[in-house]
Amino acid sequence: MQLPDSQSSQQAPRPIGVFDSGIGGLTVAGALRRLLPAEHISYIGDTARVPYGGKSAATIERYSRELSRMLLDDGAKLIVVACNSASALALSALQSSLEVPVLGVIQSGAVAAVAATRSGCVGVIGTRATVNSGAYQQAIRALNPDVRVEAAACPLLVPLIEEGWLEDAVTEAVVARYLEPLLQKGIDTLVLGCTHYPLLQGALKSYAGSGIILVDSAKNCALEVQALLSSRGISSSAEGAGSLRVSLTDPSSAFLRVAENALGLDVGEVHLRPVG
Amino acid sequence: MQLPDSQSSQQAPRPIGVFDSGIGGLTVAGALRRLLPAEHISYIGDTARVPYGGKSAATIERYSRELSRMLLDDGAKLIVVACNSASALALSALQSSLEVPVLGVIQSGAVAAVAATRSGCVGVIGTRATVNSGAYQQAIRALNPDVRVEAAACPLLVPLIEEGWLEDAVTEAVVARYLEPLLQKGIDTLVLGCTHYPLLQGALKSYAGSGIILVDSAKNCALEVQALLSSRGISSSAEGAGSLRVSLTDPSSAFLRVAENALGLDVGEVHLRPVG
Repeated sequence: MQLPDSQSSQQAPRPIGVFDSGIGGLTVAGALRRLLPAEHISYIGDTARVPYGGKSAATIERYSRELSRMLLDDGAKLIVVACNSASALALSALQSSLEVPVLGVIQSGAVAAVAATRSGCVGVIGTRATVNSGAYQQAIRALNPDVRVEAAACPLLVPLIEEGWLEDAVTEAVVARYLEPLLQKGIDTLVLGCTHYPLLQGALKSYAGSGIILVDSAKNCALEVQALLSSRGISSSAEGAGSLRVSLTDPSSAFLRVAENALGLDVGEVHLRPVG
Repeated sequence: MQLPDSQSSQQAPRPIGVFDSGIGGLTVAGALRRLLPAEHISYIGDTARVPYGGKSAATIERYSRELSRMLLDDGAKLIVVACNSASALALSALQSSLEVPVLGVIQSGAVAAVAATRSGCVGVIGTRATVNSGAYQQAIRALNPDVRVEAAACPLLVPLIEEGWLEDAVTEAVVARYLEPLLQKGIDTLVLGCTHYPLLQGALKSYAGSGIILVDSAKNCALEVQALLSSRGISSSAEGAGSLRVSLTDPSSAFLRVAENALGLDVGEVHLRPVG
C-alpha cells in the first residue's frame, strides 16, 4: 500500500526509492548518500532474478514495475532506476504509469558523455540488453546528432566483478578484448553503461589510457536527482542525517561485501523482500 | 491443471519433464533423446531467472516447485531436475511433495565418480550454490566413505560458455585458475557438476590432461531415467519417434543457438512460458 502524500509527509520523511537488478546500483546509492546526506534512501536489489542484462524487454519491464511498486509501498517520493538495462528498456513505461517522478541512469550518462567528448566519438559499454536497446545511442544523438556512438556488449564484466577479480590478469585480458575495437574506432570518451562497472575503473582506465575520459553515470544521476528534488520542493527538510536501507530479493550476497568495501559504503543490516 | 493419470495415458503419451535454470540442461535432454528416442520430453529452461548458482536455497526451492508444477501440467510422468544447483538444494523437497518420481543429476554423477576413481580423490566443480551445499560431497561419501572429495566453485565458467568463448585463451586461463588447486590435491577424476560444463569439455580436458577422467552426469542421468521408467513399467510404448519440446521463461536466448550447435541437438520452435 502506498502512503497518501499528506499522511506520509506528516508522519515520516519520504525516501528516495532506488532499485537495481542486484548490488551494482549501490554505486548510485553511494553517490546519492554523498551528495544528499539528509535524504533517506530505500534501495531494492533484485538478487533473486539478477542479472537482467541477458533478458528480454518484456521481462525486464515486468520486474521493474514490481520493484517500483514495492518502493511506492515504502512511500518513495521519487524512483531512481539504478540499473542501465532497466533504464534502457522500462523507463518510459514506468514514467507514464507511476504517480511519482522516475529517473534513469542513461540520460545523465549521455549528457556527461556529450559534454566530455572532443573527438566527437563516444564509446559505450554495457550488458547485451542495454547495448541492443540502442538507448544510449538515441539519448546521445538527441543531445548532439554529430556525436558518433560506438557500443559494445560486455557480458563477462559483471561476473568478473562479482567474482571479486577486480585487479587480475584474466580481467585485464577480457577488458582488452572488449575495448580494443572501440579504441580502434577513435573514441575519446567511454560511458560505463552498467552500474557495476565503476568497480572496475582501475582495469578500464589502465587499458584505455589517460587519453580516454571515463563517464560513470552514478554521480551525474545524483546531481539530476538533486535538481529534481529542489525544483519540485520535495528535498528533505530534516536537519538530521539521512539513511540507507538496503533490501534484497534473495539473501545470498557474496558480492554485497565486495561492493561495500569497494564503495566505502556502510550498508548495515540487509532486509529480505521476496518476489516472484 | 494436471491431467489425471487415466485420461492422459489414454489420450496422449505422457512426457518426461525436464527443467533447468536455463539452457545448460539441454545436455541432459540431449542424452535422453539419444538413449530413449521413443520418449517425448518437455523441457523448461528458467531463462527469466537464470542463473540459480549464486542464489539461496529458499529461492531455488521456490523456483523449482513452480517449474515442476508446470511440467505436471504437461502430464509429466517423471521429472528430471537437470540443474545441479536445483538438484543440490531442492531435490528432496520435490521428491517428498510431488506425485511422480523425481530424479536429479547429482546421484548419477556421484556414482560415476566413485566407479571411476583409482586414487580415491575426486574433484567436483560447480556453481557456488552447488559446491556450498555439500551435496556431491555427501552423495560420494554415502557411496564410499574412503573417497576424498575436493570441490571448487567456478562461477565464471557459465558466463564464459554463454559468451561462446569455448576455445579461447581467456577461458583457458580461467580454467587453469580454478583447476590448479584441485590437481595439486591429487584428484584423478573430475565431476562436471553443472549442466553447462560439458560444453567446455575441450578446455577442461586439455588443462587437466589425459590422466584425469571427466565425469559428466548427463549420460549417467539418462541411464538412471531408463532404469526407472522400465522398473515402473512407464516406458513409452509408442513405435514412432519421440519428441523434444523446449519452453523458456524468457524469450532472450542468444545462448540457445550456441548450445544447439555444440550439442548437435535440434531444438526446433521454442515456446515462451512466463513465470514470476
